[in-house]
Amino acid sequence: MALLVCVTGRDNSKLMAELRASLPDVDVREWPDAGELAEIEFVLAWNAPESLWQQLPNLKVVQSFGAGVDGIALSALPADVQVCRIVDPALADDMAQYVLGHVLAHKLRLGLYYRQQQQRLWRPKRASAGNRVGILGLGQLGQVAATKLQRNGFEVLGWSRSEKALEGIRQFWGQAQLSEFASQCDYVVCLLPLTAQTHGILNKALFEAMPSHGALINVARGAHLNEADLLAALDNEQIAAATLDVFAAEPLAADHAFWDHPKITMTPHVAALTSLKTAIAQIVANMQAMQKGLPLSHCVDLQVGY
Amino acid sequence: MALLVCVTGRDNSKLMAELRASLPDVDVREWPDAGELAEIEFVLAWNAPESLWQQLPNLKVVQSFGAGVDGIALSALPADVQVCRIVDPALADDMAQYVLGHVLAHKLRLGLYYRQQQQRLWRPKRASAGNRVGILGLGQLGQVAATKLQRNGFEVLGWSRSEKALEGIRQFWGQAQLSEFASQCDYVVCLLPLTAQTHGILNKALFEAMPSHGALINVARGAHLNEADLLAALDNEQIAAATLDVFAAEPLAADHAFWDHPKITMTPHVAALTSLKTAIAQIVANMQAMQKGLPLSHCVDLQVGY
Repeated sequence: MALLVCVTGRDNSKLMAELRASLPDVDVREWPDAGELAEIEFVLAWNAPESLWQQLPNLKVVQSFGAGVDGIALSALPADVQVCRIVDPALADDMAQYVLGHVLAHKLRLGLYYRQQQQRLWRPKRASAGNRVGILGLGQLGQVAATKLQRNGFEVLGWSRSEKALEGIRQFWGQAQLSEFASQCDYVVCLLPLTAQTHGILNKALFEAMPSHGALINVARGAHLNEADLLAALDNEQIAAATLDVFAAEPLAADHAFWDHPKITMTPHVAALTSLKTAIAQIVANMQAMQKGLPLSHCVDLQVGY
Repeated sequence: MALLVCVTGRDNSKLMAELRASLPDVDVREWPDAGELAEIEFVLAWNAPESLWQQLPNLKVVQSFGAGVDGIALSALPADVQVCRIVDPALADDMAQYVLGHVLAHKLRLGLYYRQQQQRLWRPKRASAGNRVGILGLGQLGQVAATKLQRNGFEVLGWSRSEKALEGIRQFWGQAQLSEFASQCDYVVCLLPLTAQTHGILNKALFEAMPSHGALINVARGAHLNEADLLAALDNEQIAAATLDVFAAEPLAADHAFWDHPKITMTPHVAALTSLKTAIAQIVANMQAMQKGLPLSHCVDLQVGY
């Protein structure tokens, strides 16, 4: 029985050392040095090659090395494999703090004043009056952000795939109510999981529904956003501004139109960084649960994709 | 009996019209068109000439047209004159929101990312760990800001002129404890009234006491800050950054060193703007109280200056 780490595109030396120290009785391997494939029952994965899954006849668990499972080709997995993700409570707090900070940055016109300072312009303007924040996606991250915003005097509207009732949140659901939701938001915050249904959901139709003073904040995944539609909506004054922490390709290409767009505020995917300590504790707990035949934590429903 | 408006440096047409509409039985005059000076018992003042007070033999009340009384030459007033200020509850909320927004802007490194975006640099960095906000001045504005910061997970330290006990705030007082206070703050927020004792309190000694990663936020008055000391402290890396909403001379001169300083974030005196509606209601209430011989609201202790 072995655990395979297939996390690509980063330096895993610390991760490997800490996993081996925490699981002294487990054969922890690092892809592509996978050894006898029939021995592998547990894979820690991020951006793993889709072809990997069919090569593992005894695979039982795929543990995502992230809060989402969009780095895993779910459709290529056998139906009896369990897929889990990392749920870092501090991550939800960090995300909520980022969302509040950037909503306030729009409200207090920080971007405008940064630009005016560079131009030596003294032009006082009242803070923007808008107080309605719409959150797309009311899972764990969305709910923590909603509560933080409410405690700071914002009215929160929510949109989710299916019907939900959350205290104090005016709730919309399904594709049919998306425009009605967006039309009432001064700020739209995307905290959705990335699935086939939510891919490209931040698009022309949404921007047309939003008020012209509205601001978009995307802290979910780059693929939620149709980049060309955003540029058109900003240039046509359908919406006023956007703050983006995630991008279809990261790091953003040096010649991308977002860098010097005056209505776009960019941060380099820093809204919520999972702590290695928390991740390792959850990986180890799930590995041990699998060994003992106990239920795993933070499993994903493969039918809905989150 | 007459009310004189002596508010200089702004367009008072709306103010005059609304005061006259609200006080139809009062002779409301606008300086310098003051008429018979012996008739004037109530002056609404901001940046009024110091020589005015000795010309008004029957002056009873000076109502400041602001949250502070530093626009009034208190020492030139006869001892039996009452001085009042505007207390706008929304202003305290706006101020607290500005303080939270700019503390979060430092914590989330918004200034760094604005600059990196302009340079097309993708350099992710964790949010800064600092969570201790020190508030200089725990009057009404300071207390509302403290509560808002605490509700958002910040630890609040307070410094005031004299001993105060406020729930959940580690409290320092007097000149003797100022350095000990400053040494423990990740962020220092100035919300003090401007008096002879607080003039220039944001100076070399304070910056030397602060940690090198510390940030200063001044939302009180420009004269609290020694500008040369701030520039030296930033250049010598005694403190890391400053956000300034107020300046010794406003608007800031076009050739001032603050405009293009990479460690200074400027806003054009917008942290809290008193609403005209609230101001007029309080001016009218105090005028009517004076006429009826009732106690006035929001009076200032001339001995301490706030």
